[in-house]
Amino acid sequence: MNDRVQVEIKDGVADVRLVRVDKMNALDDAMFGALIETGERLKGEAGVRAVVLSGEGRAFCAGLDMGNFGQMASGERRQRDANAGEALLTRDRTEGGSNRAQHAVMVWHEIPVPVIAAVHGVAFGGGFQLALGADMRFVTPDVRLAVLEIKWGLIPDMAGMVLMRTLVRDDVARELTYTGRIFDGAEALAMGLATRVCADPRAEALALAAEIAAKNPDAIRAGKRLLNLAAEGDQHAVLLAESREQGALIGSPNQVEAIMANMQKRTPAFAD
Amino acid sequence: MNDRVQVEIKDGVADVRLVRVDKMNALDDAMFGALIETGERLKGEAGVRAVVLSGEGRAFCAGLDMGNFGQMASGERRQRDANAGEALLTRDRTEGGSNRAQHAVMVWHEIPVPVIAAVHGVAFGGGFQLALGADMRFVTPDVRLAVLEIKWGLIPDMAGMVLMRTLVRDDVARELTYTGRIFDGAEALAMGLATRVCADPRAEALALAAEIAAKNPDAIRAGKRLLNLAAEGDQHAVLLAESREQGALIGSPNQVEAIMANMQKRTPAFAD
Amino acid sequence: MNDRVQVEIKDGVADVRLVRVDKMNALDDAMFGALIETGERLKGEAGVRAVVLSGEGRAFCAGLDMGNFGQMASGERRQRDANAGEALLTRDRTEGGSNRAQHAVMVWHEIPVPVIAAVHGVAFGGGFQLALGADMRFVTPDVRLAVLEIKWGLIPDMAGMVLMRTLVRDDVARELTYTGRIFDGAEALAMGLATRVCADPRAEALALAAEIAAKNPDAIRAGKRLLNLAAEGDQHAVLLAESREQGALIGSPNQVEAIMANMQKRTPAFAD
Repeated sequence: MNDRVQVEIKDGVADVRLVRVDKMNALDDAMFGALIETGERLKGEAGVRAVVLSGEGRAFCAGLDMGNFGQMASGERRQRDANAGEALLTRDRTEGGSNRAQHAVMVWHEIPVPVIAAVHGVAFGGGFQLALGADMRFVTPDVRLAVLEIKWGLIPDMAGMVLMRTLVRDDVARELTYTGRIFDGAEALAMGLATRVCADPRAEALALAAEIAAKNPDAIRAGKRLLNLAAEGDQHAVLLAESREQGALIGSPNQVEAIMANMQKRTPAFAD
Repeated sequence: MNDRVQVEIKDGVADVRLVRVDKMNALDDAMFGALIETGERLKGEAGVRAVVLSGEGRAFCAGLDMGNFGQMASGERRQRDANAGEALLTRDRTEGGSNRAQHAVMVWHEIPVPVIAAVHGVAFGGGFQLALGADMRFVTPDVRLAVLEIKWGLIPDMAGMVLMRTLVRDDVARELTYTGRIFDGAEALAMGLATRVCADPRAEALALAAEIAAKNPDAIRAGKRLLNLAAEGDQHAVLLAESREQGALIGSPNQVEAIMANMQKRTPAFAD
Repeated sequence: MNDRVQVEIKDGVADVRLVRVDKMNALDDAMFGALIETGERLKGEAGVRAVVLSGEGRAFCAGLDMGNFGQMASGERRQRDANAGEALLTRDRTEGGSNRAQHAVMVWHEIPVPVIAAVHGVAFGGGFQLALGADMRFVTPDVRLAVLEIKWGLIPDMAGMVLMRTLVRDDVARELTYTGRIFDGAEALAMGLATRVCADPRAEALALAAEIAAKNPDAIRAGKRLLNLAAEGDQHAVLLAESREQGALIGSPNQVEAIMANMQKRTPAFAD
């Protein structure tokens, strides 16, 4: 809980809200820090079975804070990065220039349970990439989305290239990256960048999160591990991981409970 | 030919039928064995140029036999797997727990000629993954499909993670895996899990198989090798394989026959 | 400039035209050479910020010249390839059998700026694969496209397997490769093989190329490098490359110009 991101955990669902309302949840250093801190904390939080990520106020996330562009224009950040050099780029992701930004997105990909982004208003640039870190994206019809970085003479560098390739065709990723054009919910759905278009994405995301939270949490976590691995792409590693994950699930208490509840037509009671 | 799977080979097309009609072709140990044995035998069968895989009776395949869930609930299989340990998971796929299940699917992927699954009724869990092992899936409009494993507290572990990623978007794979929800033919087509929706998938699959069986079998086999390699994803290996495969085809008897027949506007006669 | 391919560079856009009009721009040795030479020259051409690739006359490219099939039927090329052996397949791509053909396509993928193919009439076999080498494909509604190679008893071997997998589903690639069937613009769009269907693809491609040419050329080039890397598929390499590319862009003259122009609501003036 801080002035950038708030979390409420209820019935296994973590309801994560960006609350920098006066700036449309734009990404400044404090917001990067709050996203990373929140995500890292949720990784280890007992009883969390699903996460919904959304924005308070008029927008999901307007993207990089304008203050950062001022710094860039002044050359200030450039100098800092140049001093840090290559070491900074490869070092622990909780520190340093671009890697800190990637971390604020990838932490949602790495969280061991499913994350659903509920997106309304705008999600531009870094805000758009933040939504890509989630397992699924529910958006409003009138949402405005863009891989906006080229407007500021930049590339998307918050893991967008890694995450887009599992969602959209190569030519679509290119067109959006080269032009930075804005698109709405219907087009996002058609291209693959939205999972569902609905009037109230947050309500639907919370409902699906509750549904997922009622499943065997061990299998949900195993599923996300496998899906993350599959997205990286080594066929043999994935086949072996399937075997290992299933081997650990079969006959385990929660899996036996899933079977018994199904057979007895009752609601299962899982342990975290 | 056995009491689980029957094969009829005619004009280069292997018509493979699951015939455990009283159990909606559910997967028990005998069915796993029959699928693996049939697939392995067809790999080396002279004169087979295409395969159609379908189910007799009310369904393509209802998934894992309920008896397996009874075993899991009793902890019996768990104990057996635990005893076998890691060795079992990495050992030859014709033996052992989960790997035997993967083998029953991947054998259709590995068969050197195209396989078309004709799917009607239901294809749930393991039955759904069996269909993914084919090169293409023709389904009825009213088919009922699901990545059902989460219902039983499990993950899909019959190569589903490997095969789904080449067909559906990352977020779609996640939603289906996390929820286990049932979907029909139209939605399967929209998501990428069906290649064609038609009233009589088996008839259309047999027709396409016959069309493929009339092409240069060397090029069809080379094409499948390349497509399998491309699905695994090393660009440089694929570029080199393209060169090698084409180098072997150019000027070979069947390829010369393809050219001559085209030029002379007659039906080609290929040797297997 | 030669009798196979002509180039006009204007306002940062290279307008590349196949001009073997009497043969529908079919690919003979001279055309392969002209495509490679043109592409290689454009890689190093100062001031080129985007490329449009199109065909003069009735077609984009009819595919491999019929003369090549005559050679194959006679066994002539086979003998030549057999003599050259494996060395030929792995050697520098500017020489040798199949690799020369891959090079004529991949050179457009490798060019450091975006390439848009404007496709009308037909693009069959090698002509179809040539279009795949571009970042995007704009096509007419009545265009006729095909992975035609199986008609001649062959596989697509001009990088088609590498490039198709980032655009179409696995089962779609298989169906097209196994059957060689012809499809139009609407179906190409639905399958992912066309980026846009329009009455005048060349005009729209030139317009988009001009739009791209007005962006920060350093960021456009960095974006293409990243997108090419993402298509190859190592997640960790892509994350690191994002950091490196952005680190080099932030505070650089063209990026500062992008920010200043946006803030001052004026057109940016970039240096190449």
